[in-house]
Amino acid sequence: MGLLDRAALTCILTLSLGWFHVFALKSQLFSRFGERSTPSETPISYETFYFDQKIDHFGFLEDGTFKQRYLVSDKHWHQSGGPILFYTGNEGDITWFCNNTGFMWEIAEELGAMLVFAEHRYYGESLPFGQESYSDSKHLNYLTSEQALADFAVLIQNMKNMVPGAQNSPVIAVGGSYGGMLAAWFRMKYPSVVVGALASSAPIWQFPGMVPCGAFYKIVTQDFAKSGHNCDANIRKSWKAINNISSTASGLQWLSEVFSLCTSLKNKADAAAFKAWLQETWVNLAMVDYPYEANFLEPLPRWPIQVVCKYLSFDSPVSDYQLLHGVSQAAKVYYNYTGSTSCLNISQTATGSLGALGWFYQACTEMVMPMCTDGVQDMFEADEWNFQAFSDECSAMFGVRPRAEWAGTVYGGKDIASHSNIIFSNGGLDPWSSGGVTVNISASVVSILIPDGAHHLDLRYRNDKDPPSVRAARALELQYFREWIKQAKKVN
Amino acid sequence: MGLLDRAALTCILTLSLGWFHVFALKSQLFSRFGERSTPSETPISYETFYFDQKIDHFGFLEDGTFKQRYLVSDKHWHQSGGPILFYTGNEGDITWFCNNTGFMWEIAEELGAMLVFAEHRYYGESLPFGQESYSDSKHLNYLTSEQALADFAVLIQNMKNMVPGAQNSPVIAVGGSYGGMLAAWFRMKYPSVVVGALASSAPIWQFPGMVPCGAFYKIVTQDFAKSGHNCDANIRKSWKAINNISSTASGLQWLSEVFSLCTSLKNKADAAAFKAWLQETWVNLAMVDYPYEANFLEPLPRWPIQVVCKYLSFDSPVSDYQLLHGVSQAAKVYYNYTGSTSCLNISQTATGSLGALGWFYQACTEMVMPMCTDGVQDMFEADEWNFQAFSDECSAMFGVRPRAEWAGTVYGGKDIASHSNIIFSNGGLDPWSSGGVTVNISASVVSILIPDGAHHLDLRYRNDKDPPSVRAARALELQYFREWIKQAKKVN
Repeated sequence: MGLLDRAALTCILTLSLGWFHVFALKSQLFSRFGERSTPSETPISYETFYFDQKIDHFGFLEDGTFKQRYLVSDKHWHQSGGPILFYTGNEGDITWFCNNTGFMWEIAEELGAMLVFAEHRYYGESLPFGQESYSDSKHLNYLTSEQALADFAVLIQNMKNMVPGAQNSPVIAVGGSYGGMLAAWFRMKYPSVVVGALASSAPIWQFPGMVPCGAFYKIVTQDFAKSGHNCDANIRKSWKAINNISSTASGLQWLSEVFSLCTSLKNKADAAAFKAWLQETWVNLAMVDYPYEANFLEPLPRWPIQVVCKYLSFDSPVSDYQLLHGVSQAAKVYYNYTGSTSCLNISQTATGSLGALGWFYQACTEMVMPMCTDGVQDMFEADEWNFQAFSDECSAMFGVRPRAEWAGTVYGGKDIASHSNIIFSNGGLDPWSSGGVTVNISASVVSILIPDGAHHLDLRYRNDKDPPSVRAARALELQYFREWIKQAKKVN
Repeated sequence: MGLLDRAALTCILTLSLGWFHVFALKSQLFSRFGERSTPSETPISYETFYFDQKIDHFGFLEDGTFKQRYLVSDKHWHQSGGPILFYTGNEGDITWFCNNTGFMWEIAEELGAMLVFAEHRYYGESLPFGQESYSDSKHLNYLTSEQALADFAVLIQNMKNMVPGAQNSPVIAVGGSYGGMLAAWFRMKYPSVVVGALASSAPIWQFPGMVPCGAFYKIVTQDFAKSGHNCDANIRKSWKAINNISSTASGLQWLSEVFSLCTSLKNKADAAAFKAWLQETWVNLAMVDYPYEANFLEPLPRWPIQVVCKYLSFDSPVSDYQLLHGVSQAAKVYYNYTGSTSCLNISQTATGSLGALGWFYQACTEMVMPMCTDGVQDMFEADEWNFQAFSDECSAMFGVRPRAEWAGTVYGGKDIASHSNIIFSNGGLDPWSSGGVTVNISASVVSILIPDGAHHLDLRYRNDKDPPSVRAARALELQYFREWIKQAKKVN
């Protein structure tokens, strides 16, 4: 902590966090030929390829290339013009996205579709300068969404030229979270390459001047408010309790023990980091508040916030110690549901893996997403959005400064009505829906709301406990896919 | 010559040539406040501004800015939401485009429009690194169409934020030739910034694999064929005659004298340069075959090719000397219509001014436009398109290599049907119509043909001798403008 503005860092982290925890583990499970099968899910089997991609699409001085990884499954593909579902990889290892986008695997057969999962440059194995990629701002200079979209476009054009039968295959972009933003932007910027896009939980409006900076944390708070009696109120009270207790050395020690922290809190800065970590914990829970037991960010029970809130339902005033004891039990639902965690590490989510560092850089350049809290409409300590402080921290960390207006200019901001064939799906429980497109823009730029859904629930595997809203969403998405494919056939 | 493949260089030159001849002269005529008026034309009066533009929109390492010049006329502007006609500057001094786009000046009052002419980076006064801008490939690295479009978008967003009343002004992009390509691409890539585009004589399909490489020179040939008896046939014969005569020293001397060349031809290389220069002359004539006396590339009579062809109507076989004497008289129509030219300089069009050099660089990177001749369907010596040779010459000249497929990928190639509100106007006499959009693509991506028109005749001032086709084209263009403005008002 400390390098980036706390609120900003939290915001950065929440978007990227989900992907990075389990990379180290997951990425070892797949070699050149991936294979996966669990009893209840469609088996996954793909081949891994590498494409020589230009390091710089927008300048000609740097003419070098790097190996972009992409995964292909053509088991169900109808070679004579069957569609291609193309996952626009986001900030992490592509095998992780591949394994967490069951929706694509489940509809491949009925669409006769090829599946392609393309890795985003600077993540996973797709490192433009190998181990040097993150060494300094010079090497990081080609980490932008525009370069990533150009990678996708060039890769698809190449596949169409090289893969027999692919020439007339309509391509549909699919992505979730930042990958969903990329899917939508891909259709906007390269409509000749993709006939449509499913942008799931894609906060394309989470940029300066587009939505109130407090909307995100307000949704997190609502999730807790409706999941248990007094749940949000008690979390709101917890920050002051932490401040009180952490003001003494013995209090810090007590906190460290009751939360089973791996490293004891020593001072005020540690206490601040501890609070940020807790805040992120609540945010993550809001993102993965799924209706069934799942292991996305962490192994969790079904409707995890309801379980968490059982420990936070104090009715009458309780002591700081009682309150925080409840908070610690709540946090352990998230970090130790399986009971196998020996201690909680508050720096684990705060220090970046390679992937998190990449997203920090993106947040410090293009992906400027203002976030703020007021402690009234949300359950967090008040914290204003301070662009200048954020910019200064980016400059200190990476030697670059964010450009607050650029994303809005290049991607059209709220004025996207002239585009076509984009589905924006959003979960009502997902805090990222704050920056999502939650109204129909036109007949073909449409919004699908999943009131009971958390972060891109629709992209996950079907589950018996799925609420009707997500089943309906997937059915509607599939219907749009069919329509786009039909449109494309008419043109060809 | 010699640095670039001849056919390629010719192709490069023909697009850029028009603009650069007269820059040195013209650009001195205007200072901060431009002023111009001729009896028959709408008076021009504008104010010059400079905007701090990022040198690199697509990377954050280079955070410097440069002064982008733009010209503004708000004399007729209705401040409460009146439209803005925005000229997307092409490869040259913006004052030159400003003065040669009479159409915008003539419709400003009836539309209540502000006029803005934005200079393209690396041309005119808009030099990212001042005098160093062209010093090497490192400094040239930010000379791309994508950067130029981003400049336009950022400039407009800034004007909307800063100019009282401009916030709700619908902006229409207008451009001719490469500027027309930029206008069309601007609408495609930034539809939130411009509500529509008039792309006049914009060869957006003159890229690899989109149109036959010989189409351009075929149109040049047709222009000569229909402008005089045997005109194309005699030009077709002239190359062999030049080869014959230039094979001896005395023949070279004779050629130099009869063409009144400033510098005598000395050897085979000079003879080759001489032929390329003649070829460019015929191309230029085809581009500016206007129905009235005009001074665009050179001072010329009305329908100049008809005048040229009077000297090339030999019926029966004539000697090489007779034939080339006719060719020399024809060439002098182009270079010495006023009678004030003391000698013809064959290197003048071949060596680049700053502006020409910029276009060479663009052709050597993104703007790869294959051209070829076969001597049968056209009146030129056969010359195949050789990408590898072209690439090698670019590498030797600039240290960069062209990317043949990139323009097609980034701008959608022939698949542009998903866009809206773009007019592609093309003149039937204009060789660049070979790469233009000459069919309606959809209800709102439309083609306007001007059978009697040469290169972007519709953008020029009205003239009594204008053929009905160009009058109709301008009326229709205006009608589309009104429709787009009405659409935009509905949204706001």
